[in-house]
Amino acid sequence: MNILGFSFSTVEAAIKKAGRKDLALIYSEVPATAAAVFTTSSVKAAPVLLSQEHIAGGLAQALIVNSGNANACTGEPGMMVAQETSSLVANALGIDAKAVQVCSTGVIGVQMPMERIRAAIPALVDGLASGTLDDIAQAIMTTDTFPKMEASSGMAGGISYTVAGIAKGAGMIMPNMATMLSFIITDAAVEPAFLRQIFRRAVDNSFNAITVDGDMSTNDTCLIMANGMAGNPVIAEGSPEGDSFASILNDVLLSLAKQIVKDGEGATKFVEIRISGAQNDSDAKRAAMAIANSSLVKTAFFGQDANWGRIFAAVGYSGAEVDQSRLSLNFDDVCMARNGIFAGGDAEARGTEILKQKEFTVSVDLGIGNATATVYTSDLTHEYISINADYRS
Amino acid sequence: MNILGFSFSTVEAAIKKAGRKDLALIYSEVPATAAAVFTTSSVKAAPVLLSQEHIAGGLAQALIVNSGNANACTGEPGMMVAQETSSLVANALGIDAKAVQVCSTGVIGVQMPMERIRAAIPALVDGLASGTLDDIAQAIMTTDTFPKMEASSGMAGGISYTVAGIAKGAGMIMPNMATMLSFIITDAAVEPAFLRQIFRRAVDNSFNAITVDGDMSTNDTCLIMANGMAGNPVIAEGSPEGDSFASILNDVLLSLAKQIVKDGEGATKFVEIRISGAQNDSDAKRAAMAIANSSLVKTAFFGQDANWGRIFAAVGYSGAEVDQSRLSLNFDDVCMARNGIFAGGDAEARGTEILKQKEFTVSVDLGIGNATATVYTSDLTHEYISINADYRS
Repeated sequence: MNILGFSFSTVEAAIKKAGRKDLALIYSEVPATAAAVFTTSSVKAAPVLLSQEHIAGGLAQALIVNSGNANACTGEPGMMVAQETSSLVANALGIDAKAVQVCSTGVIGVQMPMERIRAAIPALVDGLASGTLDDIAQAIMTTDTFPKMEASSGMAGGISYTVAGIAKGAGMIMPNMATMLSFIITDAAVEPAFLRQIFRRAVDNSFNAITVDGDMSTNDTCLIMANGMAGNPVIAEGSPEGDSFASILNDVLLSLAKQIVKDGEGATKFVEIRISGAQNDSDAKRAAMAIANSSLVKTAFFGQDANWGRIFAAVGYSGAEVDQSRLSLNFDDVCMARNGIFAGGDAEARGTEILKQKEFTVSVDLGIGNATATVYTSDLTHEYISINADYRS
Repeated sequence: MNILGFSFSTVEAAIKKAGRKDLALIYSEVPATAAAVFTTSSVKAAPVLLSQEHIAGGLAQALIVNSGNANACTGEPGMMVAQETSSLVANALGIDAKAVQVCSTGVIGVQMPMERIRAAIPALVDGLASGTLDDIAQAIMTTDTFPKMEASSGMAGGISYTVAGIAKGAGMIMPNMATMLSFIITDAAVEPAFLRQIFRRAVDNSFNAITVDGDMSTNDTCLIMANGMAGNPVIAEGSPEGDSFASILNDVLLSLAKQIVKDGEGATKFVEIRISGAQNDSDAKRAAMAIANSSLVKTAFFGQDANWGRIFAAVGYSGAEVDQSRLSLNFDDVCMARNGIFAGGDAEARGTEILKQKEFTVSVDLGIGNATATVYTSDLTHEYISINADYRS
């Protein structure tokens, strides 16, 4: 995989436990058109606040990311660390500090060891000659059990380009030693406003459509850099090339998002929740997320218990407009309930067989409209409790 | 305990497993002023729909409740069962069917065995001579590990009255074999509009301020009957007697609500979450509930891990107005964080000691207003997963 004009580097800065790379740098030879989606939490980590400011200009040329410390709930000292980090990287690379994005993931509420970052930056910049995107995917892992990567290629004006992405996160978020981070890079040239628009939409269809535990991080960040080094004619809205690029971007993000759910803390099941027949899109998403976040539904998945009543109960309290006499439910192709009541026959036995699979689809038709939504979730298991109860001990 | 004019009966109708009482009746000699709060879910059980209709007139004289079957997601046949049940009870007691409240709790989506209820009603009515409120508290248990009762007495115009209540529920709700039900009876005479108003407020301060798993049932019902048999002058708004009655009612409901949290499925901790300094009441409640429902916070309680960052993260995504630089946090009297950052010193060690207790208080001051809220929650444990994953198998 070759994404023109990007280089990568990782070092061990002793922010997390010894023997693991914990500081990483992505650099583009030229300033890249950039867009980002950050956590909507009111409690935002210092690097999120800084990066939001920096990306306002629509450009980025470097991204520095550490694991092992979230630099969240660290007040003014934390802000100074984020600022100094971006300045040091900018100076070492000879670029504007505003072109540097800073990301952190790890423990909340512990001050960052700035002296270690300061000491590590020269080696980090020197390493750009030899690193790979795969190294970065490894360095940003926390409770992840595998690195998450995806890449795909497309053509625009007879020129081929690549879209590649990495992600970390093994819960929707685990504010202690995690967060959802995803970085997408492409050598395609893309019109800036169009890039922002399709990136936002792709994030909604992917990272905003997954849940492991319903929690949200202080540090969640999803960023794209498009540096145009492929030399293609600029991709814009309303063209076949634009549609194709948007579709590739969507696929890359969705693949990364699904990898996060599959690596969900303690997860043994990957479940696609599909809502149809809702009155509007937000109702559809609300109903889907209520099912996907219900502890009772998720423990039933773990227990392989075809307890369909819990799913209707979740839809009932979701806030979506619901007529209970029109609800129907399928596990894969097995109809469990229709018109709000049990489908009868051997549905129970057949539904239980579906739930024994590692992956299955739960489809609920609200029967009162045409809007749909799809989200992805995992089951809730003993292992989730163990990981999160015993994490710091 | 003597609540004048009320009698009680329980029988085994074979709705749930053999050897357990599963059908219960509360009867008042005279029509009682009544008020009720039902689940706000759009998926409501048949008895909820019927009881809502019946209570619209503001009176109730009998309450029949079964455990073992929720009569939810049962469509028209379920509605006919609820109606026939109320008619049979009304006929046997010689009262109006509209004066009969019907409640159910148990499995969702299974049709009720009407023939067993029909067969059991004569014995149920005959038993009114000898039953106690305690019998009812036992008969409505499902996953509860102990019956929940509370009673208190007051005086109005020199006449003493009693307020007694029972409840069931060992999760905020577990739609498969549970639900939150609570029945309050009093022999006090209370002005109807005043009763409705203070009952709604007491429910908000108690049952609407607890959470075990954040789920909500198709069957949740909280009902009060005030039959006036104590012979006191009617208690009304704006009097010392009114204030006193409201306060007693509040205490009884709060005690029952706390008993439900203490019996929370798999719970090992009872945690009071106090928010202060919010801009308004709904922000305060939102922040409190976000903490109380966070899987990450609740597993940290289970792990006795003073992981305060998770609490600020939950406040951050709660939707409440938050200035992260003004947040402070206490575990009991130990300050863990102030001005949004770690309090330093030995806070970590001292906070961990607090979390080792079976009961403790988590106080968050948002620092930007005067509104407060208090909610009660439990931890999230391996046992919760076991109970809910393996329930029907």
